[in-house]
Amino acid sequence: MELIDGNAIAAAIVAELKQEVAARPGRKPCIALVRVGEDPASVSYVRKKEKTAAEIGVTSRVILPPETISQAELFTLLDELNTDPTVDGILVQSPLPKHIDELAVFRRVSPEKDVDGFNTLNLGKVAQEDETGFVACTPAGIMELLARSGVDLKGRHVVVLGRSLIVGKPVALLALQKKAGANGTVTICHSATSNLSALTRQADVLIAAIGRAEFVTADMVKPGAVVIDVGVNRVPDPTKKTGYRLTGDVHFPTVAPLCSRITPVPGGVGPMTVAMLMKNTVKAHRLRTEAG
Amino acid sequence: MELIDGNAIAAAIVAELKQEVAARPGRKPCIALVRVGEDPASVSYVRKKEKTAAEIGVTSRVILPPETISQAELFTLLDELNTDPTVDGILVQSPLPKHIDELAVFRRVSPEKDVDGFNTLNLGKVAQEDETGFVACTPAGIMELLARSGVDLKGRHVVVLGRSLIVGKPVALLALQKKAGANGTVTICHSATSNLSALTRQADVLIAAIGRAEFVTADMVKPGAVVIDVGVNRVPDPTKKTGYRLTGDVHFPTVAPLCSRITPVPGGVGPMTVAMLMKNTVKAHRLRTEAG
Repeated sequence: MELIDGNAIAAAIVAELKQEVAARPGRKPCIALVRVGEDPASVSYVRKKEKTAAEIGVTSRVILPPETISQAELFTLLDELNTDPTVDGILVQSPLPKHIDELAVFRRVSPEKDVDGFNTLNLGKVAQEDETGFVACTPAGIMELLARSGVDLKGRHVVVLGRSLIVGKPVALLALQKKAGANGTVTICHSATSNLSALTRQADVLIAAIGRAEFVTADMVKPGAVVIDVGVNRVPDPTKKTGYRLTGDVHFPTVAPLCSRITPVPGGVGPMTVAMLMKNTVKAHRLRTEAG
Repeated sequence: MELIDGNAIAAAIVAELKQEVAARPGRKPCIALVRVGEDPASVSYVRKKEKTAAEIGVTSRVILPPETISQAELFTLLDELNTDPTVDGILVQSPLPKHIDELAVFRRVSPEKDVDGFNTLNLGKVAQEDETGFVACTPAGIMELLARSGVDLKGRHVVVLGRSLIVGKPVALLALQKKAGANGTVTICHSATSNLSALTRQADVLIAAIGRAEFVTADMVKPGAVVIDVGVNRVPDPTKKTGYRLTGDVHFPTVAPLCSRITPVPGGVGPMTVAMLMKNTVKAHRLRTEAG
């Protein structure tokens, strides 16, 4: 069994991006990070994004509207960023306060600056295999993890657990694409699937993204499979000073020995998200500067 | 075995649309049918669409640019139709002459008038389960055939043969949606799939859309399955005066006896396409008039 080291792969991508940015003349890429309110997890995520941006040479502009901002005001803010020629990418940190329609906000971000890949047009481009778009960071990160671990999906059966808009559906569409490394046969399972383990046991590559702690057990995995664990779940653990531990959607202790490769949680898919956000930002900058 | 009668179901939809249009005050729905050149199949398809529109009470405006029209001229024509307040839907008949980029043309049609459902934004809306968009006519027709034949996909395994942008991918996304009638577990197979029949034999519902004549044989189908045959292939047949016969992607004589339900070719999915085009046009009209 080989561990897929998300930290190491993300670090390699960050190093590549740093080189790429250093080699570019003129204005450096710039990402606007919009964080509404003071949610502690959001504070920490945005700080991590800022830090990685700085490491690469990407300028970040952190915008911190108060929790009380109205949707209309947030739209005005986004419209300003959309038209600002010095901004290449825009990220609106999720979750947003309850009085704001999150999907509407994601759609308000101009497709050309949608480095989070949540805009409808960019999702359509994933289906159309149109590489001018932006792929959402988690599914893009999964594909990079596989590619950089030497896993070619061609002719292999990829089973995706979960049909979310942010992970399950886009990763299924990516695995299915007619390009090198992809070309997988794809099955998408979810809460309404019957006889689930009969399907997961067929997976050459199993991608678990259902948000249920340690849901995938050894009897659900074919020996030799590659397992990608997208879950990040908090499980109460009195032995930890935080009172909880992080666990994936996979029961790692029993599943890992069966696998040819597996991602740990934490340290697997997680670190890839920020790296892919930066990759999208550097791409957005390239597309903008090439377009003149 | 029960035959799914696409002609009867399409006729029922046309009758419903006719009633709906008759009940609407003011300007009737209008579809612009753009046919470039004189391809005989296109002539016949556009005539059929015109005829069905007339039957429903949808105005059609047939526009017949010559084969030599440039892409820029075609774009200008589409831009005029996009901004024309009396046009609800725009259909550009495929295939287009080789000097024109078909995908670029489909994207030029405004998403609000894209009754063919080929615009990137509308494909993204299918993935997002956003019902304000337009679903491409063939996959929409397949879902209607299933629903009106009493086939509920919930908890059933839907295997889609083919990953095209026009059929395979959108029908997979539709079958997967979290709504009544859908909620299927979905597998998408294609030319790079290994051990294909082991997968198709698991299908409770098998959707064949690969464009290979009589490719699906009895050994590939589970007894009791529902089979939807999207293929329209010409096979040489000296006994016919045309010299060919039409056949689907399924070897009907041997597969049909195994099935609980199956669509014939012709008379299955085919007739649904025009019905769904009209349904999209009537919807576009409703959305435009509701929006004021």
